Amino acid sequence: MFSLTVRDHFMIAHSFTGVIFGPAQQTHGATYVVDVTFMRAELDADDLVVDIGLASAGVKHELARLNMRNLDEAEEFAGRNTTTEFLARVIFDRLQAAIRSGDLGDSAQGLAAMRVTLAESHIAWASYEGDI
Amino acid sequence: MFSLTVRDHFMIAHSFTGVIFGPAQQTHGATYVVDVTFMRAELDADDLVVDIGLASAGVKHELARLNMRNLDEAEEFAGRNTTTEFLARVIFDRLQAAIRSGDLGDSAQGLAAMRVTLAESHIAWASYEGDI
Amino acid sequence: MFSLTVRDHFMIAHSFTGVIFGPAQQTHGATYVVDVTFMRAELDADDLVVDIGLASAGVKHELARLNMRNLDEAEEFAGRNTTTEFLARVIFDRLQAAIRSGDLGDSAQGLAAMRVTLAESHIAWASYEGDI
Amino acid sequence: MFSLTVRDHFMIAHSFTGVIFGPAQQTHGATYVVDVTFMRAELDADDLVVDIGLASAGVKHELARLNMRNLDEAEEFAGRNTTTEFLARVIFDRLQAAIRSGDLGDSAQGLAAMRVTLAESHIAWASYEGDI
Amino acid sequence: MFSLTVRDHFMIAHSFTGVIFGPAQQTHGATYVVDVTFMRAELDADDLVVDIGLASAGVKHELARLNMRNLDEAEEFAGRNTTTEFLARVIFDRLQAAIRSGDLGDSAQGLAAMRVTLAESHIAWASYEGDI
Amino acid sequence: MFSLTVRDHFMIAHSFTGVIFGPAQQTHGATYVVDVTFMRAELDADDLVVDIGLASAGVKHELARLNMRNLDEAEEFAGRNTTTEFLARVIFDRLQAAIRSGDLGDSAQGLAAMRVTLAESHIAWASYEGDI
Repeated sequence: MFSLTVRDHFMIAHSFTGVIFGPAQQTHGATYVVDVTFMRAELDADDLVVDIGLASAGVKHELARLNMRNLDEAEEFAGRNTTTEFLARVIFDRLQAAIRSGDLGDSAQGLAAMRVTLAESHIAWASYEGDI
Repeated sequence: MFSLTVRDHFMIAHSFTGVIFGPAQQTHGATYVVDVTFMRAELDADDLVVDIGLASAGVKHELARLNMRNLDEAEEFAGRNTTTEFLARVIFDRLQAAIRSGDLGDSAQGLAAMRVTLAESHIAWASYEGDI
Repeated sequence: MFSLTVRDHFMIAHSFTGVIFGPAQQTHGATYVVDVTFMRAELDADDLVVDIGLASAGVKHELARLNMRNLDEAEEFAGRNTTTEFLARVIFDRLQAAIRSGDLGDSAQGLAAMRVTLAESHIAWASYEGDI
Repeated sequence: MFSLTVRDHFMIAHSFTGVIFGPAQQTHGATYVVDVTFMRAELDADDLVVDIGLASAGVKHELARLNMRNLDEAEEFAGRNTTTEFLARVIFDRLQAAIRSGDLGDSAQGLAAMRVTLAESHIAWASYEGDI
Repeated sequence: MFSLTVRDHFMIAHSFTGVIFGPAQQTHGATYVVDVTFMRAELDADDLVVDIGLASAGVKHELARLNMRNLDEAEEFAGRNTTTEFLARVIFDRLQAAIRSGDLGDSAQGLAAMRVTLAESHIAWASYEGDI
Repeated sequence: MFSLTVRDHFMIAHSFTGVIFGPAQQTHGATYVVDVTFMRAELDADDLVVDIGLASAGVKHELARLNMRNLDEAEEFAGRNTTTEFLARVIFDRLQAAIRSGDLGDSAQGLAAMRVTLAESHIAWASYEGDI
């Protein structure tokens, strides 16, 4: 299996609901350093996993939808805790849709799987991985 | 599959038995930077893989049992080489027991797998991964 | 000149005032990975720059005063932009006071200078350095 | 599953063929930081995944065949784009052959799989993983 | 003293002249991960060292002049070895000129010094630092 | 001022004397990742700070004198605590002598200063810097 990973980041405010979160129930924030890994069994005709230019632009586009926001005000996340692992899944789902709609190029239709990892600090990160 | 990783470290002395180890047959030591990755198929009711506070405390507790020791004097490792890969398995087994006994919280009973990675330097690391 | 550095982190929400900040005028947030470097010309009687246990605890104490907060609600920063470089100076000043009041141990009175670096992402960081 | 990873690097010049590569169609170059991960189900009699000395030397030997070269002049890659993902596979295949021929020691015959990752920058890397 | 650092990268081919360079006399290449540190004694009216948007764009503009090129064909470097340390100085000089001509904003006129660091691998990097 | 840095590592066992060290009074160990920074005002005739081959070999030679040892048995450190900051100075002094005796090449006589940094973990490091 081949893979290609690109890294970018976004910065948001949010708070969590539930005693388990302790002080993180207060409004705080995070920088998420995001690694998106694209996977496929064989390279395409250009010897690529995916067009890295389109892939980087696609990731940046999805992160821009979250960047510089207070996620507590995001209607699409109402009733959910926007934890690191939850956001990894959100970005996975949105990138999966972008791939299927052709935004990452024709060759990206040959991708088999993807993993989205969000690092919230130098000592904690979370990911979601699934088939495309 | 979702995952959450936390990082911590411990520092020990030891020596190895066997010509294959060359100068590492002498008493020396290592800092091990430890990444523990918890995995599960679906998030729990709080949108979490595991309570990161309990997970971090659980990892710290297990590493404290090894930290600041000369492992050559540890009876539980008699007759074994405490290599990086061997210690990854030791920590895996101990954390697996802690999870099963409830030390990482009720939700941790839903964990599917775990990977323990020990970096011994900027150019070498080892891991053990298995189902829980 | 000798130095010792310890690393920790904190997570906050805030917003900035001024057209120059663009979308960062909205409420967002950041993880700051903090490196505090203590400097002195000669080691103390224990061959140390500073007691690393007290230094780490002192840094953690100061970061806890900022951690998990919305800095827009902090009266002490009213009228200022809590930029990365501004916060580096805030933490420097507070740690300097802690050192002078003896919180980092007697030997810390021999420190000559300090640098506080805050990384806001994998591609941007800021610092403040000064004499103690 | 156990794993052991060693890191090394090599530096090459090359150019790519195809409009999709944009300015990378010009002669340019890259430093590739290479992580080779060896995997097996059980440790060998020395409590090792593989002899790290032989493994490091084997990786260095293969990278030396590529290091300090202009890959556009390499006959073995004629008609191919020497992308990061393509080179990960090349190194995988060569190390697989080295393992099978005994260059990494007798115990290395027990390896089950291998992953070769090449980082081309702080924001992009690629890998190839397969059974041995 | 305050500082702000931004990170970016560029990829080039080149060769060196002189027996001291050994195999690096052949055409090869490098990825340079570039950290540019801007320094000043006091923050500006916005609590900034420099407008990070303009600074990042200014760095990217200068790196784009080098990126994806074979530096052996660059007339401006004729007769010189484009070593990591040499290139750090080239980028310093060009950014200094950009700052003086106002490309990084009015506030950048208050910068006191700058350091440009180029990492050529995970085990080697070079820098040039000077007053502005 | 120009600088060039090379990275390497060594692994040792030791213990400390003094109540301030707590559990580190027991025999334990550390991996030290070592960064040696060479500084000079102007590049040499080859556009270099120092011959990186000789510099890397010189650093490796000095680290080999410490690597894979129990420093409690080293006569040259009797009566001292081999803390991270103390070892940074030891390596500085030894490399300074090597430079003065010509081991890093004739051009190295033009070096102005040097900094030796030892990272003992992902959250703590120490350095010694001085003129040559």
